[in-house]
Amino acid sequence: MRNLTLLTDLYQITMGQGYFNEGRHEEMAAFDIFFRPNKLITYSVAAGMEQAAEWLLNLRFEEDDIEYLRSLHIFSEDYLSYLAGLRFTGDMIAVREGEIVFPYEPILTIKAPMIQAQLAETALLTFVNHQTLIASKAAKICAAAGGGVMEFGLRRAQGADAGIYGARAAMIGGCVGTSNVYAGKLFDVPVSGTMAHSWVMNFPSEIEAFRAYAKSFPKGCLLLVDTYDTLKSGVPNAIKVFKEMRASGLEPVGIRLDSGDLAYLSKEARKMLDRAGFEKAIICASGDLDEYSIRSLKEQGARIDTWGVGTKLITSADMPALGGVYKLAAVFENGEEIPKIKLSDTTEKVTNPGMKDVFRLYDNASGKAIADYIVRAGEEVDTSKPLELFHPVETWKRMTVENFSVRNIRTAWIVGGKRVMGTKSLKELNAYFNGEYARFWEEYTRLDMPHIYKVDLSPALHGLKTDMMHRYGKGV
Amino acid sequence: MRNLTLLTDLYQITMGQGYFNEGRHEEMAAFDIFFRPNKLITYSVAAGMEQAAEWLLNLRFEEDDIEYLRSLHIFSEDYLSYLAGLRFTGDMIAVREGEIVFPYEPILTIKAPMIQAQLAETALLTFVNHQTLIASKAAKICAAAGGGVMEFGLRRAQGADAGIYGARAAMIGGCVGTSNVYAGKLFDVPVSGTMAHSWVMNFPSEIEAFRAYAKSFPKGCLLLVDTYDTLKSGVPNAIKVFKEMRASGLEPVGIRLDSGDLAYLSKEARKMLDRAGFEKAIICASGDLDEYSIRSLKEQGARIDTWGVGTKLITSADMPALGGVYKLAAVFENGEEIPKIKLSDTTEKVTNPGMKDVFRLYDNASGKAIADYIVRAGEEVDTSKPLELFHPVETWKRMTVENFSVRNIRTAWIVGGKRVMGTKSLKELNAYFNGEYARFWEEYTRLDMPHIYKVDLSPALHGLKTDMMHRYGKGV
Repeated sequence: MRNLTLLTDLYQITMGQGYFNEGRHEEMAAFDIFFRPNKLITYSVAAGMEQAAEWLLNLRFEEDDIEYLRSLHIFSEDYLSYLAGLRFTGDMIAVREGEIVFPYEPILTIKAPMIQAQLAETALLTFVNHQTLIASKAAKICAAAGGGVMEFGLRRAQGADAGIYGARAAMIGGCVGTSNVYAGKLFDVPVSGTMAHSWVMNFPSEIEAFRAYAKSFPKGCLLLVDTYDTLKSGVPNAIKVFKEMRASGLEPVGIRLDSGDLAYLSKEARKMLDRAGFEKAIICASGDLDEYSIRSLKEQGARIDTWGVGTKLITSADMPALGGVYKLAAVFENGEEIPKIKLSDTTEKVTNPGMKDVFRLYDNASGKAIADYIVRAGEEVDTSKPLELFHPVETWKRMTVENFSVRNIRTAWIVGGKRVMGTKSLKELNAYFNGEYARFWEEYTRLDMPHIYKVDLSPALHGLKTDMMHRYGKGV
Repeated sequence: MRNLTLLTDLYQITMGQGYFNEGRHEEMAAFDIFFRPNKLITYSVAAGMEQAAEWLLNLRFEEDDIEYLRSLHIFSEDYLSYLAGLRFTGDMIAVREGEIVFPYEPILTIKAPMIQAQLAETALLTFVNHQTLIASKAAKICAAAGGGVMEFGLRRAQGADAGIYGARAAMIGGCVGTSNVYAGKLFDVPVSGTMAHSWVMNFPSEIEAFRAYAKSFPKGCLLLVDTYDTLKSGVPNAIKVFKEMRASGLEPVGIRLDSGDLAYLSKEARKMLDRAGFEKAIICASGDLDEYSIRSLKEQGARIDTWGVGTKLITSADMPALGGVYKLAAVFENGEEIPKIKLSDTTEKVTNPGMKDVFRLYDNASGKAIADYIVRAGEEVDTSKPLELFHPVETWKRMTVENFSVRNIRTAWIVGGKRVMGTKSLKELNAYFNGEYARFWEEYTRLDMPHIYKVDLSPALHGLKTDMMHRYGKGV
């Protein structure tokens, strides 16, 4: 494993030197990761917490890292010695990967000596921003397809990690496999892929290319049929080879379409395959797909069984950054919490101060999620009586919930520098996501004009925030 | 260094098994990387070739890679043994990093035994697509700013490599530094960064935060002035501290604005700094910048000296994938080239067959680039007489050039598995780009409605392509 301790912005290390000089570097502080609303993602699927935890547990400046920092001539020797011995000794509290999350919720909180919390900011944001983005995109694509989506994007990914960890996030969001062999090995997930156009072009004729492939892969014969002419050449040749296979007691897997009018071609190909007696041969489609084109193809009655989705998934093409931030929530003096707030001209941009918990409220009758409720850490929600929720800015918007249950969606991952959260397979994480997804009304998760899921503050948190805004807000 | 040999799509390894079974895996083949026109990039800056070459030279399946492939139960033991001993023995011919390149040009060609060329496809595309995209975006941003752009995007990058190699590409495209410490160490490039809002929030008052910073960094004092109120609090407090510094014989670096109306704030801050006698203190701006907002700020007369550009640079937000492809250009039988073509319903999508070279034509009088000219490999261009160029599709569009020079923009990087291209520093690569950029008329590189730079084919290449299209194009 690469040591990525230096995967940080220089200002984290310069601020560290500043705190060190002030003798304040070991004062405890808490920072939250959250993101703000955006036009494209109404619900997000948390991911990247595993890599965040790994980064923290592996925090360690190697000798050559210190040597490099020394060469910048901006750090003192005693600070560099301190860095050389630095390990993460704090806490990481975060949602589970696969958890459905919403704007403003603290999806990951670091409580640690100031210098550690500061050093961690950049890497944690990188991992959580990236994977949450891709898991969320994958969830939307998989919902549109109704399953059977494979991640095919490595060649268009923004570097190796974008491909590897993008594949990881895509699996959490619901993809059933990836073409990325490295990711397949690293995360023990299904890998898939058969042939490219170059295979077909590399034989004197399409049928010879198909025959050669069927001979090599009698059990996994999925033929790419669009190299020359899908309906006049590709599908007929595939059927010819499938018949030859059947004559030897073998069954083909199916065909792949990678270009052209996928709705029309898939319907025609389906008819041709069915007429030839290959009702069980699947049709896989690929080529510039996303949730919108997949929905459109399904509306047109396309007969597509599995989907290979590349560029638009692996880059989240219509919104390539989640924009999550890492904001100071509190400092601690003699163990006592002193909440901190970041003001802004825009009310929605003012941070929620202090240590917090996030409860998800479920309706007991339907089992469905009603709203999320951010409270000051330690606050309990009494489910035995009605709870009044109110909009955090437009406070006249109110709703009373009754007969409900609550669940704290955050949990401890690392306590005092020791990992307390077990690792889960991607299959388990996706199952967890699916379970939660089923508890959301479709009105919140649909592609077009979804309802905005409520994320409200408890009166105690809202009161603290309002007080601090009035106290510090002169002029903003 | 991580072994990224498995960074490939599964179908490369399955096709490899197929070729292996056919006894054709060591037949020589040549593949080109090129990209098609897109709405946003009129010129591109090549990058990622260095990582492509490294990948090829490090191609080596480790024991646990073979073990993993075996576990998939689709490969034969003799094929796995063959893979275990596989090394890259072919050639890589490519443009230099920092070269200005255009659609359809073969910017990288692999000539190698089929199985090696096929295995390499995905990783090479990942590296070249990603870095060329970011270098091109950086070039546009740096051109708009006229210099002084720093790359600040790591926290919004699509994973660690997107941040690290994105920073690398951004330096080739013209950024003068990065906030990314890992990239700074790896590529020996300037790193920059001072303080975040959390530093200011962590002191009882803004002025105390500034004083503490100035004390720790007497030589690098750049203060972030927008935490509370830029003009009423931030800049006046900064000036107070700057005066205290000067009283001790020190000079400040300047201030950073990270929010608000950057045009207005920078102009007012400039006046305040100047009036206080800090004419040399710089103003750095950051916050959701790209080439368009920078141009607009400059048009409004913003007084900004350096620019910190993050999300939109590191993700190339308006076009997050270049879409480069890797297409079979030729196979070789007994050393003899057999050109290959990939047809398409769209004439522009038909590939250019065979081994090729790309000449850039320069006007001797102005020294400026006239057009690029793709020829069959080995063709020479006679500069002693006029050369007629014609549009590759609309062939009636013709132009005659005289008094010109030519340069082959491609060069050998690897020959017979051995590297022949030396490594260059990012500074050298950026200098190379700058030199070439100066040879392009501004009409080709401007942001709005640029002229389309001509990329034409020689009569020999055009003839070969047309013949093959007629020969194989029945039905398309």
